Amino acid sequence: MTTEPPSSEVQLTPGGRLRHFLAIENLPRSLLTEILDTAAGFVSVGDRSVKNVPLLRGKTSVNLFFEPSTRTRTTFELAAKRLSADVLNMDIAHSATSKGESLLDMLRNLEAMASDLFVVRHADSGAAHFIARHVTPNVAIINAGDGRHAHPTQAMLDMYTIRHYKGGFEGLTVAIVGDVLHSRVARSQINALLTLGAEEVRVIAPRTLLPADVEALGARVFTELEPGLRDADVVMALRLQRERMQSALLPSEGEFYRLYGLNEDRLRHAHPQAIVMHPGPMNRGVEIDSGLADGERSVILHQVTFGIAVRMAVMSMCVSGQESGEV
Amino acid sequence: MTTEPPSSEVQLTPGGRLRHFLAIENLPRSLLTEILDTAAGFVSVGDRSVKNVPLLRGKTSVNLFFEPSTRTRTTFELAAKRLSADVLNMDIAHSATSKGESLLDMLRNLEAMASDLFVVRHADSGAAHFIARHVTPNVAIINAGDGRHAHPTQAMLDMYTIRHYKGGFEGLTVAIVGDVLHSRVARSQINALLTLGAEEVRVIAPRTLLPADVEALGARVFTELEPGLRDADVVMALRLQRERMQSALLPSEGEFYRLYGLNEDRLRHAHPQAIVMHPGPMNRGVEIDSGLADGERSVILHQVTFGIAVRMAVMSMCVSGQESGEV
Amino acid sequence: MTTEPPSSEVQLTPGGRLRHFLAIENLPRSLLTEILDTAAGFVSVGDRSVKNVPLLRGKTSVNLFFEPSTRTRTTFELAAKRLSADVLNMDIAHSATSKGESLLDMLRNLEAMASDLFVVRHADSGAAHFIARHVTPNVAIINAGDGRHAHPTQAMLDMYTIRHYKGGFEGLTVAIVGDVLHSRVARSQINALLTLGAEEVRVIAPRTLLPADVEALGARVFTELEPGLRDADVVMALRLQRERMQSALLPSEGEFYRLYGLNEDRLRHAHPQAIVMHPGPMNRGVEIDSGLADGERSVILHQVTFGIAVRMAVMSMCVSGQESGEV
Repeated sequence: MTTEPPSSEVQLTPGGRLRHFLAIENLPRSLLTEILDTAAGFVSVGDRSVKNVPLLRGKTSVNLFFEPSTRTRTTFELAAKRLSADVLNMDIAHSATSKGESLLDMLRNLEAMASDLFVVRHADSGAAHFIARHVTPNVAIINAGDGRHAHPTQAMLDMYTIRHYKGGFEGLTVAIVGDVLHSRVARSQINALLTLGAEEVRVIAPRTLLPADVEALGARVFTELEPGLRDADVVMALRLQRERMQSALLPSEGEFYRLYGLNEDRLRHAHPQAIVMHPGPMNRGVEIDSGLADGERSVILHQVTFGIAVRMAVMSMCVSGQESGEV
Repeated sequence: MTTEPPSSEVQLTPGGRLRHFLAIENLPRSLLTEILDTAAGFVSVGDRSVKNVPLLRGKTSVNLFFEPSTRTRTTFELAAKRLSADVLNMDIAHSATSKGESLLDMLRNLEAMASDLFVVRHADSGAAHFIARHVTPNVAIINAGDGRHAHPTQAMLDMYTIRHYKGGFEGLTVAIVGDVLHSRVARSQINALLTLGAEEVRVIAPRTLLPADVEALGARVFTELEPGLRDADVVMALRLQRERMQSALLPSEGEFYRLYGLNEDRLRHAHPQAIVMHPGPMNRGVEIDSGLADGERSVILHQVTFGIAVRMAVMSMCVSGQESGEV
Repeated sequence: MTTEPPSSEVQLTPGGRLRHFLAIENLPRSLLTEILDTAAGFVSVGDRSVKNVPLLRGKTSVNLFFEPSTRTRTTFELAAKRLSADVLNMDIAHSATSKGESLLDMLRNLEAMASDLFVVRHADSGAAHFIARHVTPNVAIINAGDGRHAHPTQAMLDMYTIRHYKGGFEGLTVAIVGDVLHSRVARSQINALLTLGAEEVRVIAPRTLLPADVEALGARVFTELEPGLRDADVVMALRLQRERMQSALLPSEGEFYRLYGLNEDRLRHAHPQAIVMHPGPMNRGVEIDSGLADGERSVILHQVTFGIAVRMAVMSMCVSGQESGEV
């Protein structure tokens, strides 16, 4: 599978409407802003007594999880149900692929059942892109995390959170701290921040946890925490992907915390109004100190709340784009 | 975790409305009666052609099962769906907790997704109580069985069944037979029966299957079956928790049946109109003879039917209590 | 369990309405035609923007899968949801049966929860029939595949597909190719085709993959492919049940393809307008060549689409038959 970013033609209709959501790359600022604006309408739905809207009533959304992720699946399942869609959970590891059926045949079968949305989680970079390009002309594909490449709905919920607390992106300095190399979301975050007009995006990590091309993405690299945090408006921790890391890259969790762990004391280097974010699940005492995670600067649980609304926005926009009839 | 019974303040709003349902202890008779009366309205829903009511439309109910129980999960899932709620099933053993996330972080995440109800099943006594007290101010917690401590919706469906067949509790003698020591439900049953005004609650079991404090709960102890059954109006078998018992406590299933197993012949000692109950799943030929289980005195399947209605009652009352805005 | 075909009295009300759907045998042509006509109304639902209809709103459909089949479960789950039913998925292998509960007790419990439909998948021939006859007077049973015996909704979606492309059954020659011995669906197909008036039903297989009684079913046997295909209007491949076959019966997959595999070249022996079908999942290069599977003659994905509509038809007709009050 290719790890090249999808061109905008794959993701957009000729009229520029979203029809797949695979990666942030090559999407125009206006479209990212439309996602955030659409999500804003759904955030209020979560506060109502009746949290459902009928936008996707009679539609079928299929969670195609080639690797397990209860947390991510739950957020998409909830988003789909709040849009009144029917949801099918496909645990691919235990399904017909084990009977010798090819992936393409399985996808064509699901498509033939008149599915409207595939939410795809896969360990290989580019899997969602591959599916969108080769398989399913009438089904909207949403990337729910592929390899190290992209996790674009996570990045967009982060953007929503930043816009909510900072009012916009102009002039902002954002620091991304931690295991950039193994992160699904860092690349998506950098792309989204730069597209939306952030002033400076910094990545802070040891050299061993930085991909070779990170500067080409437009990020400024810091290998030490405190200079990297200086005057930052937003500090985003990355999850330490312990299960993916080879031991040689990192001495120990204690060592990581000593050098790159976030706490109240170190945050004094950031802007006094800086907010602290984490995509979850947190390793408390490794990427972030418990006091900071639960403190006043932390907007971590708000990210979760906004995440449902952002996924509702992306799902409803993609289905609407597919239904527009533009090919 | 504490195994102390939750005080009524945890379970009730200041105005006395139910907002969590954790245990029968310390709940007033009026509230238990309100649950039964509310359930009565839902029993008729099960007989209708359309069995759903829109009471929890747009609400999200999460089944948090820290130990598997297909039977119990199914009843809560069905009750939630008949109330038109959206249901998420979380199989915690295989979820994010295995990625090193703490229980509290996982619960806060689910709460941040605007969940309305957590239905909690846990092997540790007091787990649901712990969650209700420390974690989730805006989410109603329903205890679906915790350790040996409580299984209050099971106890309430038993109360519904007794009231349905006996017209009330005044003057009733109720005999609970079997493995009281390992039963989640016996303690809840004794509390409910005494609160609702039963005349006498008996427990019948070998000393080795009786908890030390059972008499302090208000029950009268019998170690032999026939004197214990004498003139009883209601005979409730407990499930023999074979998978929990250490072999030393009990010689064999055959021996148990010989001494404490219920059958038509032994039921002659009970009141001629006595009903026979079992929480299921039954070990036929161990706790109860097949002929009796399927016979005229048995109300075992009616317990199941009433169980859906009782769970609908508890769920809708808790959400309504949370929404009342009383803290 | 019996492997005798269910009599029509089990499946039909005294007035001749469907109340269980267990097997094609002994069902009258008028009823099979009614299923196809009802399905035709639902096919158009799959093309609409809102694909749901409220026919089973407030009904509960339980998927009772005693052996796993993600593909089949998914089609029934989707069909039930498009009819607006509530769906419970019971994974029996991991459920209360492992706690020592009998199958009958589990079924009675589900029935007591006011379930309306059981969709049953079982490795033993006659399991659905057994359940329909002995257990559940008020619940409609649909056979979703039992042992080698029957898979009647699969057969009916094949009939729908044939009628759609051929306009009817009169005068048709249908060739069924492959592992008839281990096929759930071949027996159902032969019965359905003959009941609906096909001119000739052929089975094409090596002797080792033919059941002893296949000619008694009314099929004409061919052990060589090309004579069997001659002038056939419909060619239906069977899935090679590799996981069920003992190695001695078949030399190798390559050998099978050489003798019985379908490809464009061999299809020249069939009628020029012949359609090609496969129940899925396909073993490409074993039962069927990829070019043929994806070519113009192939209606394989249409079978999947029609399958949802046929299952919606059977489910709604069975519930309606149960509700008619005829016993």
